[in-house]
Amino acid sequence: MLSLRREMEELRQRINVSLLRFLEEKKKTADDSYNETLYSLLIDFATRGGKRLRPILLVETYRASGGKDLDAVINVSLSMELVENYLLIHDDIIDRDDMRRGGASFHKMVERLIEEGGGEFPPGGDFSHFGLSCALIGGDVFSSMALLPILKSPFPEQMKVRALEEFALACEQCFRGELLDVVLERREDVDEDEFIRMIDLKTGDYTTCLPLVLGGIFGGLEDVEVLRDYGKLIGRAFQIKDDILGTFGDNKKTGKPTSSDIRQGKKTLLTIYVLKNGTSQEKKFLRGKLGGEVSEDDMERIRHIMDCGAVEYSLKRIEYYTDLARETLLSSPLKYKNFLLQFTDYLKKRKF
Amino acid sequence: MLSLRREMEELRQRINVSLLRFLEEKKKTADDSYNETLYSLLIDFATRGGKRLRPILLVETYRASGGKDLDAVINVSLSMELVENYLLIHDDIIDRDDMRRGGASFHKMVERLIEEGGGEFPPGGDFSHFGLSCALIGGDVFSSMALLPILKSPFPEQMKVRALEEFALACEQCFRGELLDVVLERREDVDEDEFIRMIDLKTGDYTTCLPLVLGGIFGGLEDVEVLRDYGKLIGRAFQIKDDILGTFGDNKKTGKPTSSDIRQGKKTLLTIYVLKNGTSQEKKFLRGKLGGEVSEDDMERIRHIMDCGAVEYSLKRIEYYTDLARETLLSSPLKYKNFLLQFTDYLKKRKF
Repeated sequence: MLSLRREMEELRQRINVSLLRFLEEKKKTADDSYNETLYSLLIDFATRGGKRLRPILLVETYRASGGKDLDAVINVSLSMELVENYLLIHDDIIDRDDMRRGGASFHKMVERLIEEGGGEFPPGGDFSHFGLSCALIGGDVFSSMALLPILKSPFPEQMKVRALEEFALACEQCFRGELLDVVLERREDVDEDEFIRMIDLKTGDYTTCLPLVLGGIFGGLEDVEVLRDYGKLIGRAFQIKDDILGTFGDNKKTGKPTSSDIRQGKKTLLTIYVLKNGTSQEKKFLRGKLGGEVSEDDMERIRHIMDCGAVEYSLKRIEYYTDLARETLLSSPLKYKNFLLQFTDYLKKRKF
Repeated sequence: MLSLRREMEELRQRINVSLLRFLEEKKKTADDSYNETLYSLLIDFATRGGKRLRPILLVETYRASGGKDLDAVINVSLSMELVENYLLIHDDIIDRDDMRRGGASFHKMVERLIEEGGGEFPPGGDFSHFGLSCALIGGDVFSSMALLPILKSPFPEQMKVRALEEFALACEQCFRGELLDVVLERREDVDEDEFIRMIDLKTGDYTTCLPLVLGGIFGGLEDVEVLRDYGKLIGRAFQIKDDILGTFGDNKKTGKPTSSDIRQGKKTLLTIYVLKNGTSQEKKFLRGKLGGEVSEDDMERIRHIMDCGAVEYSLKRIEYYTDLARETLLSSPLKYKNFLLQFTDYLKKRKF
């Protein structure tokens, strides 16, 4: 496990260097001061942290398929990180989230910039709507940029076209999941099957399946379907763990207050479990808090309620999906499976 | 001119048939009732009108370059229309516009659907924010879809990669222009040069340059730079005419109230001219109305003020850019220039 962490950290740093270089080059092409400011903010947002899990997965799957051109594939993997920033910025608008990766969300960052009168943006008008507009535009800029690392790579054109088709479809699935996520917030009667469908769409396709499939394509694999199956399973484990960390984790590491999910009324396996299996008092309390204001005391009580079964159940589901994933991986045509096998275990143990 | 209009109308209808078929196929892949509703709304929005200028330009440039596979290029041209819908939906969020193509803008459409209690979306929560969220997601769905007609076309992979790079860069330019547009709304001291820079970015790159360049690429041209130059010039003429029609045109045909630009504080050549050359009373009146509420009487007065010089000046600029465009086109390597030459004239004369 130590070697896995070291390998991930080394790769993360190389990806960070490439990402910064890519974005700085982009910024140079912005030929007015407003767009320069926008690109500076985009750089700030994209480089202030982040685990780089998606690019790492792409690079490691490429290697596991026998691919040798590490520099080329690291550059390709930036597209994963760019699309992630696109989705996070738009997601934070939708969720009205003020925090991301321990700093302000993009729309809040712009809003505060004008409020404080710094920067190039002229004052006047509705600050909050201007922040939202810039965040919408900023996300869209990341979305266009995300195609370039694939298009400009030295891999065969045929691979690029195949990869971009996967890319477009995975993004579309993710938006479908995002819609489902938003709709399920407004409903109380969500069951586990619906939740799994939502995270398969919202997380599985682009967080895990897409990097794996792309790594396989650029690594030269003909058949990547088993990677997609594996991706779906670890995607579920990843998201369920993410929801546990969101509520119980260290908010300095997760970058968001632990009350975020509850305040937004997000459906997680934890809340679904309590709403189904809790005592009528517990159900009533949680129902009253979902989508409303939540104090630190409320969160204490919610965590206590979840500790009576919901967390244990969620951890068991993670175990179940990672076990299945491990089996799927073992039957895959990958040449070198070591990293991905360790990664499967890491998903269970990670603390942020 | 009659034959131009007939040719455009015939092509428009063929594009509409392909577009509807493409979107209906997409809708079939949505496997929950909420996403089915979303896709129905996207189909409603995309098919309720629209001149299809961008796909027509792409198809005609392909033909003008000597391309022969009309069915294939019509399908490719859908990507232009899909990206247009993406930009319009997000633009309407940013401009807080309630109307588009004579109906409700996308976010308003969703908002009203829940208010009226119809459709699949569950009630509850903030209707307006839910409408905005669905519009953000809907635009993003169009953005992913827009890649597919190019990726799945029967043209050589090399052409597709080249086209998609143009595509990604044109979108990025457009977002830069959108930012500039939003920023210039908040400033009073905008001059014509800045305005031209803004419309070059916001309109030129994706409205005219991109379809021309793509038509050239798929038609087999090696050098498409002269098409880009031509595109930039007609893009300017197009946008200046659009702004005149927005204020003076028939709102049944333009699909938006004539007060829209003024109410949003949009900078157009008309307002820039008045703010520079009007009497101090005229300037004061216009300044007081830009970005605020505007009555029909106010609009009458504003149109009257603009009639004293601003309209004439704008028409002269359109003449100037279309003349230059005509010369550029004549020096281009296109085999058949007839349609595009007539199209250049059409831009001056169009009434919506």
